Amino acid sequence: MRIGELSRRTGVPVPTIKYYVREGLVPAGRLTSPNQADYGEVHEQRLRLIRALLDVGGLKVAAVADVLVAVDDPGLPEHKVLGVATDLLVSRYPEEEPDVALEAARARVDELIERRGWRVGAACPGRESLAVALASLERVGHADFGGALDTYADAAESLAVADLDYAVGGGDRDERVERAIVGTALGGAMLASLRHLAHVDRSARLHGHGQAPHASADTAPRNGAGPL
Amino acid sequence: MRIGELSRRTGVPVPTIKYYVREGLVPAGRLTSPNQADYGEVHEQRLRLIRALLDVGGLKVAAVADVLVAVDDPGLPEHKVLGVATDLLVSRYPEEEPDVALEAARARVDELIERRGWRVGAACPGRESLAVALASLERVGHADFGGALDTYADAAESLAVADLDYAVGGGDRDERVERAIVGTALGGAMLASLRHLAHVDRSARLHGHGQAPHASADTAPRNGAGPL
Repeated sequence: MRIGELSRRTGVPVPTIKYYVREGLVPAGRLTSPNQADYGEVHEQRLRLIRALLDVGGLKVAAVADVLVAVDDPGLPEHKVLGVATDLLVSRYPEEEPDVALEAARARVDELIERRGWRVGAACPGRESLAVALASLERVGHADFGGALDTYADAAESLAVADLDYAVGGGDRDERVERAIVGTALGGAMLASLRHLAHVDRSARLHGHGQAPHASADTAPRNGAGPL
Repeated sequence: MRIGELSRRTGVPVPTIKYYVREGLVPAGRLTSPNQADYGEVHEQRLRLIRALLDVGGLKVAAVADVLVAVDDPGLPEHKVLGVATDLLVSRYPEEEPDVALEAARARVDELIERRGWRVGAACPGRESLAVALASLERVGHADFGGALDTYADAAESLAVADLDYAVGGGDRDERVERAIVGTALGGAMLASLRHLAHVDRSARLHGHGQAPHASADTAPRNGAGPL
């Protein structure tokens, strides 16, 4: 199909498609003349994936580019591409002067990983981003919330099993990698919504003011807040 | 203390502090002369909280403003403020023409909530954001990943118990509300890092190439990806 048709079918404007091709997010079309390229199912699927990662997964274009360029590099082994995919979860923080809170948090992360027997290299970026989160809790006076760390780690383990089970069920390298990306990014969106719903439910039970299941619509409260 | 000292202690520039006061994120100082205000412990703690929510929680200033303005509104009942806090988890999507995928996803969300007996009003925004995520999976050809929905819901429930247990342990309304905000936002940052670490571990076990626990540092791979 021509680029106009590809745009019509995916809802992505032509200049945006051209930008994605230039940045390596979408493979180039097959040239049928010096000024015209032919696009197919692969391009349509890729554009739908990009829109889902940006609009629903909440990722930035640069992050999507990192992972899709890795996917399209045939020389990169599958486990490396999967590593780039799960890196989508990790926030990079500016280097800061390590203080007492950060040093203590790093030691706590090391202890957690050792205790759980997680096979995680010393350079794995999740170590530092978790330490930054724990140090931040300490600095705002909420170190006690770190007591929930093992509950959080249990949840993360069961999610990782579900995510990776889905990924390895793919038929070939490209499908397995795409499944890993989808599970990581759209799984994150699913999880945030589910945490919200579970918060609302838990709060209703604790405060005894929530409505019983199957009740009719509540009136719309301030800021669209649910009846928490 | 003067605003310069407050800036020095928190690392937040003076113009930014003034901006936060104007936008209602930080309460005004006590005027000691027409051009000078006095700030205290409350302001310092509030600024640390704002930086944590922005830098580590990954929130936008507008979202932080929504929730802090609610906190500082003494007329707003506690459960309404908690509702605004957990709304931080919900992404708002532009209204779109409902298609078959979205209608089916909404029905699936209703069924999930009913089956789990969650006390969640019909207007709760988490319903729609979860439906959008599920519809997006369908559109990119990964409806099968929705099979992980109950694993995700189980995880969300146990996290909500931990978050709300922490929140209700606060001594007064303001502390309970602050704990709910911290648990929601910094808990989300903790969770993303833990998902990453658990992905790396799970992948190492599945692919049999990860290092055993306590191994020495791996060489830094492409893009900083862990040895997944």
